[in-house]
Amino acid sequence: MNLRLEKLSEVIEKAGLDAVVINPGATLSWLTGANFHLMERPVVMFFVPGRDPVLVLPTLDMLTAQQISYHVDIFPYAEDPSTWEEAFRSAAQSLGLDAVAGTSGKRLGLDPRALRLLDFKYIQQATHAADFSDASEAFGSLRVRKEEAEVEKIRRAVQIAEAALKATIPLIKIGMSERELATTLTIQLLQQGSAPDLPFAPIVSSGPNSANPHATPSDRQLQPGDLLVVDWGARYEGYISDLTRTFAVGSLGDVDPELVRAYNFVKHANTAARAAAMPGVTTSELDNAARAVIERSGFGAFFTHRTGHGIGLEAHEAPYLRADNLQVMLPGMTFTIEPGIYLPGRGGVRIEDNMLMIENGAECLSDLEREMVTIQLSSS
Amino acid sequence: MNLRLEKLSEVIEKAGLDAVVINPGATLSWLTGANFHLMERPVVMFFVPGRDPVLVLPTLDMLTAQQISYHVDIFPYAEDPSTWEEAFRSAAQSLGLDAVAGTSGKRLGLDPRALRLLDFKYIQQATHAADFSDASEAFGSLRVRKEEAEVEKIRRAVQIAEAALKATIPLIKIGMSERELATTLTIQLLQQGSAPDLPFAPIVSSGPNSANPHATPSDRQLQPGDLLVVDWGARYEGYISDLTRTFAVGSLGDVDPELVRAYNFVKHANTAARAAAMPGVTTSELDNAARAVIERSGFGAFFTHRTGHGIGLEAHEAPYLRADNLQVMLPGMTFTIEPGIYLPGRGGVRIEDNMLMIENGAECLSDLEREMVTIQLSSS
Repeated sequence: MNLRLEKLSEVIEKAGLDAVVINPGATLSWLTGANFHLMERPVVMFFVPGRDPVLVLPTLDMLTAQQISYHVDIFPYAEDPSTWEEAFRSAAQSLGLDAVAGTSGKRLGLDPRALRLLDFKYIQQATHAADFSDASEAFGSLRVRKEEAEVEKIRRAVQIAEAALKATIPLIKIGMSERELATTLTIQLLQQGSAPDLPFAPIVSSGPNSANPHATPSDRQLQPGDLLVVDWGARYEGYISDLTRTFAVGSLGDVDPELVRAYNFVKHANTAARAAAMPGVTTSELDNAARAVIERSGFGAFFTHRTGHGIGLEAHEAPYLRADNLQVMLPGMTFTIEPGIYLPGRGGVRIEDNMLMIENGAECLSDLEREMVTIQLSSS
Repeated sequence: MNLRLEKLSEVIEKAGLDAVVINPGATLSWLTGANFHLMERPVVMFFVPGRDPVLVLPTLDMLTAQQISYHVDIFPYAEDPSTWEEAFRSAAQSLGLDAVAGTSGKRLGLDPRALRLLDFKYIQQATHAADFSDASEAFGSLRVRKEEAEVEKIRRAVQIAEAALKATIPLIKIGMSERELATTLTIQLLQQGSAPDLPFAPIVSSGPNSANPHATPSDRQLQPGDLLVVDWGARYEGYISDLTRTFAVGSLGDVDPELVRAYNFVKHANTAARAAAMPGVTTSELDNAARAVIERSGFGAFFTHRTGHGIGLEAHEAPYLRADNLQVMLPGMTFTIEPGIYLPGRGGVRIEDNMLMIENGAECLSDLEREMVTIQLSSS
């Protein structure tokens, strides 16, 4: 049997489940090696340990299913939605997942972050009395410690992202808007080897806009005295990178001294969390390593998000580096360290690196400068 | 009150609902003008006609919420998921959406295609006895007839996509892979003015791969005699285009004559469906206009998908041009016409245009050549 399906069987049994249902997303890609899309036509894999996986999908995705290297039983449906219920029912019956009236249902695990009500409706109809439970931790545990080949792809995605940023900086000109800079950076990502399905569209935010951690690039033109936050990543053979650097535009002397002070604390917080990363610490401890630095600075209230998150096939995945999360860091985990300070109306700072846990510590996969870099606006 | 909220109030009342809940996606973007992301932290808007909208979101998205041009009551939550339930509960209470024990719950509409079990869990907890129903048709009806400004953006997205393809074709070389061609086309889309968050990563499929309507670009190199399917689109100020053309690689004489025959029937089917588009016809009739041509050709079993779908803020939205769908076409609707024939193991053909329903017919927004174009592979 396929090694990843074996691993899935183990986590299903460990979680006390009879089966799992999985819709398109990172876990399905990881298990099948095939690229199914999340769209208005539901695609679901049912999996019972020891049995061949069962896939319900639209007829037009049949050839995508043929890319799977192991045997899968396929229940295809046509375009008319009134026929979909029958395909789901036949699929569940083939695995004995439909409870007979009067008997107790099977225990089915699912990922509430991935599964939509649309998919769930068909799954419920097909399995009626099934007892559903949140298996997102089980799914997370499947992919959280990367295989060597996965680490190499993440490493390459980091290299592509770094090369793209280096190629972009000399192209920044007077009058360039956030949106134009985001486009230029995206082109460089593709030219350096990223797949076209980027992990996320780059965030480019300047001046007061940089105080929004989730800003969308706008038509605002870069101005001397701005802080400029760039949060970008590449995808290589499915795996992603996710980096952030914050620049000063024009000369450092033009920048609000409070933002320069914030920058230095963020840089120290980034260093502290990277230094604290070693097998056996909890994500809570890593979060605290960064947060303690920023709290001592007096900016604690303006560090409004967690210190980091896992990266892999998804831009955000386990482990989540949050104060309340006691998950233990283990070799093979790949994750971000990204403290930030955001001063509403003034500006924001974030410095984000990508890390790999190794046997005796952690390796930082990204090595762009962390001292504040000043971007001179040229006119040609 | 905001015009779009007024329109929402109307569809809520028409659907016999008390309120709706909306998570990040096209409908929320259309209503708010702000760009919220679907991620592991749930974001939900509760809306009761006549009341200010209520938004539950992570603290770090507060500045994104400030982009909304009308007043919204905000219930933010911090990073620790154990605090989220309380934010949802307070939000629902503020609108009287939490049923008191012994009373009947409110009727809440939602979109099962957009809402995940994660979001739904918090909504259910916050509203307990609420009676949920599928409001996807109501949401669809909000956005299905485009305003003039929306049409202009779609028109621009079509122009950008067409210019990008024209700039890409001369760059196709001997030895180029599907993946490289997809990257080149994506770069041209950005250079011609598409936003970096493309509606979808281009499909570039050649030879036997083109028999998969949802193929992912591979390392297969283009070869003389291939059919080459390119399905791509641009995004301009949120609005998208979605086009497909099928080319012959090398000389037409090298192409499997059965595929050339299929091409001609697809071209006729495309023409027939475009000609049939006028206000008052059903989507079923449009589907049939294309399907009848392909069925007469004997290839009917190989046209495995619907004839088209709506386009707007989403790459796939209402109206869906399916045999079983009796929705009536009305002025202002924007949609694709995209018949195809897919012969497993041999190759596929699809010709996709973007259309706008007008008062006395339909306007085709796209005008790239529909006769089979042959791409010569150059070596330099």
